Amino acid sequence: MLPELRQRLLREMDSLPIYDIHTHISAGSAFAKTLADLVGYHYYTELTNSAEYRPDFHLGAGPEDLVRQVVERLPLVTNTVQYDWLMVIGEEFLGIRRHEWSAGDWGQLLERAQRTMAEPGYGESVLSKARIRRIYMTNQPDDNLACIDRGLFVPCLRVDGFVFEMDKQAERQRLERASGRAVASSADYEAAVAAVFDRFAAYGMAYAAISTIPNLRTRSVASEEAEGILRRALAGERLDDVTRGDWAAYAMNVVAANCRRVRKPFHLMVGVRRGAYARGVGGQDLFDSLNSLAGYDHLFNEYWDVRFPVSVLSDTTGLELAASCWMRHNLYPSGHWWYGNSPTDIARELRRRLDIVPLGKIIAYYSDAYHAEYILPKFRMYRYELASALAERMERSEEHPNMVPLSFAEALDIAEALLVRNPCSLFEGG
Amino acid sequence: MLPELRQRLLREMDSLPIYDIHTHISAGSAFAKTLADLVGYHYYTELTNSAEYRPDFHLGAGPEDLVRQVVERLPLVTNTVQYDWLMVIGEEFLGIRRHEWSAGDWGQLLERAQRTMAEPGYGESVLSKARIRRIYMTNQPDDNLACIDRGLFVPCLRVDGFVFEMDKQAERQRLERASGRAVASSADYEAAVAAVFDRFAAYGMAYAAISTIPNLRTRSVASEEAEGILRRALAGERLDDVTRGDWAAYAMNVVAANCRRVRKPFHLMVGVRRGAYARGVGGQDLFDSLNSLAGYDHLFNEYWDVRFPVSVLSDTTGLELAASCWMRHNLYPSGHWWYGNSPTDIARELRRRLDIVPLGKIIAYYSDAYHAEYILPKFRMYRYELASALAERMERSEEHPNMVPLSFAEALDIAEALLVRNPCSLFEGG
Amino acid sequence: MLPELRQRLLREMDSLPIYDIHTHISAGSAFAKTLADLVGYHYYTELTNSAEYRPDFHLGAGPEDLVRQVVERLPLVTNTVQYDWLMVIGEEFLGIRRHEWSAGDWGQLLERAQRTMAEPGYGESVLSKARIRRIYMTNQPDDNLACIDRGLFVPCLRVDGFVFEMDKQAERQRLERASGRAVASSADYEAAVAAVFDRFAAYGMAYAAISTIPNLRTRSVASEEAEGILRRALAGERLDDVTRGDWAAYAMNVVAANCRRVRKPFHLMVGVRRGAYARGVGGQDLFDSLNSLAGYDHLFNEYWDVRFPVSVLSDTTGLELAASCWMRHNLYPSGHWWYGNSPTDIARELRRRLDIVPLGKIIAYYSDAYHAEYILPKFRMYRYELASALAERMERSEEHPNMVPLSFAEALDIAEALLVRNPCSLFEGG
Repeated sequence: MLPELRQRLLREMDSLPIYDIHTHISAGSAFAKTLADLVGYHYYTELTNSAEYRPDFHLGAGPEDLVRQVVERLPLVTNTVQYDWLMVIGEEFLGIRRHEWSAGDWGQLLERAQRTMAEPGYGESVLSKARIRRIYMTNQPDDNLACIDRGLFVPCLRVDGFVFEMDKQAERQRLERASGRAVASSADYEAAVAAVFDRFAAYGMAYAAISTIPNLRTRSVASEEAEGILRRALAGERLDDVTRGDWAAYAMNVVAANCRRVRKPFHLMVGVRRGAYARGVGGQDLFDSLNSLAGYDHLFNEYWDVRFPVSVLSDTTGLELAASCWMRHNLYPSGHWWYGNSPTDIARELRRRLDIVPLGKIIAYYSDAYHAEYILPKFRMYRYELASALAERMERSEEHPNMVPLSFAEALDIAEALLVRNPCSLFEGG
Repeated sequence: MLPELRQRLLREMDSLPIYDIHTHISAGSAFAKTLADLVGYHYYTELTNSAEYRPDFHLGAGPEDLVRQVVERLPLVTNTVQYDWLMVIGEEFLGIRRHEWSAGDWGQLLERAQRTMAEPGYGESVLSKARIRRIYMTNQPDDNLACIDRGLFVPCLRVDGFVFEMDKQAERQRLERASGRAVASSADYEAAVAAVFDRFAAYGMAYAAISTIPNLRTRSVASEEAEGILRRALAGERLDDVTRGDWAAYAMNVVAANCRRVRKPFHLMVGVRRGAYARGVGGQDLFDSLNSLAGYDHLFNEYWDVRFPVSVLSDTTGLELAASCWMRHNLYPSGHWWYGNSPTDIARELRRRLDIVPLGKIIAYYSDAYHAEYILPKFRMYRYELASALAERMERSEEHPNMVPLSFAEALDIAEALLVRNPCSLFEGG
Repeated sequence: MLPELRQRLLREMDSLPIYDIHTHISAGSAFAKTLADLVGYHYYTELTNSAEYRPDFHLGAGPEDLVRQVVERLPLVTNTVQYDWLMVIGEEFLGIRRHEWSAGDWGQLLERAQRTMAEPGYGESVLSKARIRRIYMTNQPDDNLACIDRGLFVPCLRVDGFVFEMDKQAERQRLERASGRAVASSADYEAAVAAVFDRFAAYGMAYAAISTIPNLRTRSVASEEAEGILRRALAGERLDDVTRGDWAAYAMNVVAANCRRVRKPFHLMVGVRRGAYARGVGGQDLFDSLNSLAGYDHLFNEYWDVRFPVSVLSDTTGLELAASCWMRHNLYPSGHWWYGNSPTDIARELRRRLDIVPLGKIIAYYSDAYHAEYILPKFRMYRYELASALAERMERSEEHPNMVPLSFAEALDIAEALLVRNPCSLFEGG
């Protein structure tokens, strides 16, 4: 009976609109223009590079080489869930059938895809087949937000630069450009960040977002202490990790204070190790299984009136996150990020969240995609796990001595809460 | 066939007596006197506070306000296993049906519950419906143990104060009161602790118990070193974390030596971060996913003739605990504690323990409850997972190339070992 | 349908040859000569010692005492997967039926087993019943490799001594003996290690192997720095942990450079805590749930042209390993080691690997056995989990919106890749 239930739940979920609350999709180029935009997604360059290393494989050698390099090695990764994403895109949007990918005629695939993508209504068909209602973006502070279709796209302010890269001149200049203010003191910095927030708020930003290093420690940091650090950076001094950590703690507070001021959530994606793999092609980042949320106590307590949707990269932080969201009123478990975004780990975390976190706080999923085509297969993967968890819950509820039978309608209502109501209420004001 | 097997196993387990080897139930007020005693359990104040934060929600505003605050927000946490515990209590003990909780008439619920609780035989019916045979308590060193019904209640000496709070005058005074000795030196401290143990042993204590901070490090500490620390504390000096850790290592040895002397186990509950959530209502504690058992090597090796039942708070310590209990003769995996006490995490740890830990060492479960009403729903939750694991094992045994079919009687025998025989043998001397 | 599919897959897998890519089997005594060789396996001394501690239980008291001590306490560990391994050996190779183990007549068992083991063709029957094609050994640098049956046995160079024990005179002397060179400088050390590699390469070594401490940090270390450490060790100085870590980092590079030179993989088994349990009988080691792969960045990046099959001991490093193998072209997830070698943890890691690591990189399993009899039951345990995972994948593929049906032949092909093709390609050159 489980498979039948799961299928029924899946069918119903298919008809729900998608609120994709975190992507890297650009409003100006939301849809792929060439197959290279799709197979160039870091998942595929990573997997093919990992399956069969080729020293001559580089990004930037042009779309033809990229497509050739990836498509030639796709047969080596057919077991992966990522492979299935691409197959779905081929079938649903490009008229490419599975066996055609492995035929090796990458030139023909490139051409056919390009033709399809150039057809009028291509983007609309991607949106409508997937029922995509809203795409949240990852915007840099100096992004131009003026011409965005705000019915579809929602700006979100990415603040990694403010927190982790203010010792780099390029990032300081970006902040200056974005805010129209020189940054020579901590007061300048605070005013510049505030100006950026004001601009984003005026354009309907959903939230501020950051990806953090493992085991970040937040704490109260005086502006004077931060100013000392900034001055050393401005003088060209190379900062050590401790000093960079002090700045990060200070800047997290500045960002959180601005979230409080403009009444927007602060979305955390916790625990990435950047640049770990030197020969990565399109992907050098990993995570650390040693990752604690304890360092966020100050942030979460001090900014008790700011809402923090939180994703974690390490599976080992999964229960710590779920427990923290059960306890802390201002924490929300958000999606299944990157290395945690595969069936085994989604299944476990989803069950934990459904069992111990108040229903209204659970944010189902986001695609993290760079092009809209990926939204459908990724959400399908998640929805399959959600349908499995709910079908199991229905069956368990029939026989569990503590439960009463969960109806199909009630199971579906849980799905709607996670997929639609909760993201709307947290990010769209209701 | 799995559901049928599980049901049969559950039915048989229902008829077993409950030995609840760790609770916070007081012998003098084991049963709720008002609904506030039940919905005031920290699980509910936490979940409702987390689901919808209200600045006016405080403990201590009286039972009516507490009931109102919690019951009003119960509809926000209906997905949780904790909600189901409360529903079971309503149905089994209070005559309150599920839909009545969500009707919002908290005043009526409060009144009805109070009436039921005041009926003669209420407590007995809670005990008999749940088949509760024994309730182990959490006693402070100065608790009066004289008038306890020792057929039902078993005293257990909580030693957190001895180990983590001897720098607080109130805790030192408590030890002095409990032992009838002044504590001005490490020799005094050791004598006072011994006196407390003697008194508890005379009253049939089952074990000493402690909840520890993450990554505690035990080691040999000379009495002279401890005396230095104690003198600083007596002089009112504020101790830093390193010094507090030195004291803790010393005190762990003192406690273990007394367990050896009176031949009682030392029950460890490992890895809680106290006071993490500043705005918690009835619950501020979390855990750290970074938690190692390596720091306990000294304790476990040195006190090789003391038995250590061990619970861990972090899921990440689950296999480390199971492996340690497979290796170390004096370690026993004990229950599923707090944040680890939900179906996903119970299911995983239970299977691990059943596969690699000698059967006679596995202590199934304890409720950790503050009132006896919670014992039944919590044990039911555990028994469902145990029945699932055993039914699966029966099915697997039919087809696994390394196994022979596990009979129903053998599966049930495993359940009895975990639920009855092992706790009796470890804690009741037979 | 799942059980039927699983059975069909299991039957097909049973007919595959076994390439057991890591064992402690010695070419000269691959098969047990007495029951003590089998029940003396550390798993059984550990479990029986843990189940019921006896101060008089020591290794080295002779085979009779060993058999008695273990067999008397086997009834205490019948729930464990390890018990089932031994039962299978009894049934398949020794004609001992399950109920006979618990009859307590250990003397009779000892005698019967010895008789069977002494029969001509005993070893061959173990090999052929299990379809063992190749046994990879764990060879010390000074092992005599001349007379090995290289159709069956493959030498592998264990380098723990080079890396972690060069401050011990016995280990330096072993290296000198193995290489025929005095070791008085870092240049000597490098030349001696190279000489050992040359000799092993001439005998067809498969790889170099090491088991590492938790959280090892690799880095570039100059020969001069290493020389300073070596001189202090030669002078009899006791080295602290930091200095030992510096040497280890240096030596890991020396070993990796030799792997590069002779074009052989470097097999890592990550994260063991040696000597944790003081009263262990045949086993004192545990692991630390705190274990990060971050410290291996230097090794993996710098020796990008060396292949690193990697096992981890802690479950908490499971996803970090899978993600690293998805990213890094020169990392291969290898087997399920020791405390991770039980159904719950195999099942999880296997699914993760099948979902995110390129198929051709996944090394299924190795037995880690000391006698060939253990290969069959251990591989059966693994194959049952693999068959489960593949049967589930077949069923899921029928209904998953991103998948197309996985055929039986395709599922079996995945099994063959993991069990046969991948180990052959990585370790046998094709």
